[in-house]
Amino acid sequence: MARKVNLNADMGEGFGAYDIGNDTTLLDIITSANVACGFHAGDPNVMDRVCKQAKAKGVSIGAHPGFNDLWGFGRRMISMPAGDVERMVIYQIGALQGIAVANGMAVTHVKIHGALNNMAALDLDLAMAIAHGIKAIDPNLIFLVPTGSELITAAQKTGLPYASEVFADRTYTDEGDLTPRSRPNSMVHDPNEAVARVLHMIEHQEVVSTSGKHVQAQVHSVCVHGDGPTAVQVSTAVRRGLEAAGVSVVPLPELTLS
Amino acid sequence: MARKVNLNADMGEGFGAYDIGNDTTLLDIITSANVACGFHAGDPNVMDRVCKQAKAKGVSIGAHPGFNDLWGFGRRMISMPAGDVERMVIYQIGALQGIAVANGMAVTHVKIHGALNNMAALDLDLAMAIAHGIKAIDPNLIFLVPTGSELITAAQKTGLPYASEVFADRTYTDEGDLTPRSRPNSMVHDPNEAVARVLHMIEHQEVVSTSGKHVQAQVHSVCVHGDGPTAVQVSTAVRRGLEAAGVSVVPLPELTLS
Amino acid sequence: MARKVNLNADMGEGFGAYDIGNDTTLLDIITSANVACGFHAGDPNVMDRVCKQAKAKGVSIGAHPGFNDLWGFGRRMISMPAGDVERMVIYQIGALQGIAVANGMAVTHVKIHGALNNMAALDLDLAMAIAHGIKAIDPNLIFLVPTGSELITAAQKTGLPYASEVFADRTYTDEGDLTPRSRPNSMVHDPNEAVARVLHMIEHQEVVSTSGKHVQAQVHSVCVHGDGPTAVQVSTAVRRGLEAAGVSVVPLPELTLS
Amino acid sequence: MARKVNLNADMGEGFGAYDIGNDTTLLDIITSANVACGFHAGDPNVMDRVCKQAKAKGVSIGAHPGFNDLWGFGRRMISMPAGDVERMVIYQIGALQGIAVANGMAVTHVKIHGALNNMAALDLDLAMAIAHGIKAIDPNLIFLVPTGSELITAAQKTGLPYASEVFADRTYTDEGDLTPRSRPNSMVHDPNEAVARVLHMIEHQEVVSTSGKHVQAQVHSVCVHGDGPTAVQVSTAVRRGLEAAGVSVVPLPELTLS
Repeated sequence: MARKVNLNADMGEGFGAYDIGNDTTLLDIITSANVACGFHAGDPNVMDRVCKQAKAKGVSIGAHPGFNDLWGFGRRMISMPAGDVERMVIYQIGALQGIAVANGMAVTHVKIHGALNNMAALDLDLAMAIAHGIKAIDPNLIFLVPTGSELITAAQKTGLPYASEVFADRTYTDEGDLTPRSRPNSMVHDPNEAVARVLHMIEHQEVVSTSGKHVQAQVHSVCVHGDGPTAVQVSTAVRRGLEAAGVSVVPLPELTLS
Repeated sequence: MARKVNLNADMGEGFGAYDIGNDTTLLDIITSANVACGFHAGDPNVMDRVCKQAKAKGVSIGAHPGFNDLWGFGRRMISMPAGDVERMVIYQIGALQGIAVANGMAVTHVKIHGALNNMAALDLDLAMAIAHGIKAIDPNLIFLVPTGSELITAAQKTGLPYASEVFADRTYTDEGDLTPRSRPNSMVHDPNEAVARVLHMIEHQEVVSTSGKHVQAQVHSVCVHGDGPTAVQVSTAVRRGLEAAGVSVVPLPELTLS
Repeated sequence: MARKVNLNADMGEGFGAYDIGNDTTLLDIITSANVACGFHAGDPNVMDRVCKQAKAKGVSIGAHPGFNDLWGFGRRMISMPAGDVERMVIYQIGALQGIAVANGMAVTHVKIHGALNNMAALDLDLAMAIAHGIKAIDPNLIFLVPTGSELITAAQKTGLPYASEVFADRTYTDEGDLTPRSRPNSMVHDPNEAVARVLHMIEHQEVVSTSGKHVQAQVHSVCVHGDGPTAVQVSTAVRRGLEAAGVSVVPLPELTLS
Repeated sequence: MARKVNLNADMGEGFGAYDIGNDTTLLDIITSANVACGFHAGDPNVMDRVCKQAKAKGVSIGAHPGFNDLWGFGRRMISMPAGDVERMVIYQIGALQGIAVANGMAVTHVKIHGALNNMAALDLDLAMAIAHGIKAIDPNLIFLVPTGSELITAAQKTGLPYASEVFADRTYTDEGDLTPRSRPNSMVHDPNEAVARVLHMIEHQEVVSTSGKHVQAQVHSVCVHGDGPTAVQVSTAVRRGLEAAGVSVVPLPELTLS
């Protein structure tokens, strides 16, 4: 069984007077934080606060760029030329690098947010534009990507180091994709079930679909959440379950990646 | 007479479908460009385009952070805690650094935009917050500041290298400040007059007020503009006048600064 | 003692994925809702939801225009020409009127939000611009204003009907202004104390300052809040206390105003 | 031949310091203005200025709602629930109604902008949501729609009065749709050709495709533009050509519509 795995979560998605998520609680559970960069959520104050907290807790930080769509929280698909996406991603990574450097930290990974991540997972042109953008700003950035997506292809083609993630609280289709949230069985709310699923995914490097099909999957990182009625319980259980099983939960830069 | 001086202008102030200024023309005249960073103006596409053009023409680039106020173009005063301003400035510098690095360039200076520059010129707390922000992200960044302002004090207190600028097309009060735009004699529209004034300011390291008073001023850089009916003529004349007088017009990093 | 008083609260201050306040709870307590109009907070979906709920509960609605400053939640002072403020207020009132009409409702009052309200309370030019804007769009709109402010003067000069409000959970200075939030005694957290204060203000048409001074004040409406640890308890107690004292708590259009 | 036709153009697409288009020139040519409402372009100042100019020149005004996407100028497709679109359209119409009423004017039509118009032209659900929104705020608003689109179906189903428009400077496909801008023959730059085409479309109530096919089309209004190198010449020629042919060019409310 893999001796090392990463736990990541999206962080810093407040904006001004608005707060969302459970950043402080989650930062005790995860080992890498995906920090919103001010386009779909986040602002310089929130970004700075997450950086300071992550530093204090030994959590590595990554940029979490999304569409410039605060109203839609980055969850609405927007048609954009691939070159615009590339520059928009570079801008956001740079902004977080600025906040990180001012705190004596380094940005060590990138995970794309929401609708842009979903679109690029299926669209190699978009995925390549994003990978080129990341490589142009720092070729050592670890690209945190969904299992089985075009984003992995793009990482491989550009030579970017990448980590492949699965979700602790989501189920999978026979194609190895996430079951759409619109379906009743898309979520895993039971902490014990989530732990068992995560341990299986890590041990066998596969996901098991809702119909029982086994689909091969690289599992470098497990994504957990802080919002929703059961998210913190599930996240806490996954962290404890991994440790109880002897799996070392580490920041992304401590993984051995291809 | 000073053998070297810098010529700077604000650049990249378009946004999406909107264009403003005469970037391409001005980039043949100036030696340092202050690039809007997406808060008061500018977007990742515009920033990238200015970087590429500046690189091709040997023009050094700096960040030009402003208030997050596209509607007001950064010209409206906004009351903000100094710490928020510090983080907002860091964010914008980082964003431009990202775009610059992706183009194989480096950001070498910072000039604050519009209302924030005017406010910090008179408010040492705000000026110190900005200087601390700049220093935290890169202590080698040259801080381009108005003559005689609290921003110079802040640069000196934090140990940031700074360059002091005068305006080719604006007049000065007896206190050495810019004559407010609301007054009829605030602007210099005649190219020959502008050249004579600039040469005087460089030779004597002083500004001459509208009432004839001589006010000592460090003159490392001269700011020119691209908008307004006479701006390009004035800017072109200043560049030619400096060269005719044997003054070397150089990018900011080639100046010898205190 | 006044037989009728209004209870108002700010509503609809969420935005997209962000929620804030306790709209649903407060709508059972208040009789008039000040609805954010999308500039400092709020969006078409939130506005529509508040309108529908207010209609179901017999709560009258008013526009709550603020600065176009979502990041600062309308709490940052922004320097704007008075004419720009006038048009910005008209725009926001019109937007809410659109949502209201589509729900078979009418906007019956206007209360200005945050920093703009505070600025206009002290600046007659700004107050007049706002009053002119309100009158131009609908001269029957009730202008809900702080006691003793220039906004009352502006309402009187333009002939707008106005209602003067006091705060249930805030204390007052000897000048009859709100004690700044930065001072320790600015807030009233105890429900019983709040009720006693409100009943006194209504009965005597005066506020009592923290030093004990009595300052004359028209009290047409009492403002309550939904955020903060004790806000809902205080608001609930005030509503019950008013009813227990035989004061009729009515929507703004049911008040008899000068 | 139709004795009456309308000429319309998009107006008020500036924002803050940014100007775009040739509003003042076009207002002497057209008889109805589609006014941007602050989401894809426009702001309260621009909207007010266009209203005042339109009033002075006898040009009727309509709301021109678009996606909330200033960066993309409303030209990027954004995936939104139909209900969100409905409320977003109502908000924007209401905002312009507010500015119009403050100027003693009325909004008499609605034309949807850019990507949202293109999407709704093909998607009846979206078209119905928009039509419902318009009807809810004012059932007398004239819905200005592209010939042969689902927006006409939606207008008919909801009973909204509608006017069908053709473009003076664009060509058509065999399906009666606009030739995509990406194709070389999508635009008509020659003023004489534009006039001939427009007169043919009005006389025969049909468009002629680039391959010569005749496609039936209701022609109540002709859309002209103010941007692009030949737009003003084409627009001017069309106005003159219509008048020379004895066609009365009128504001939308003066048309006889089904």
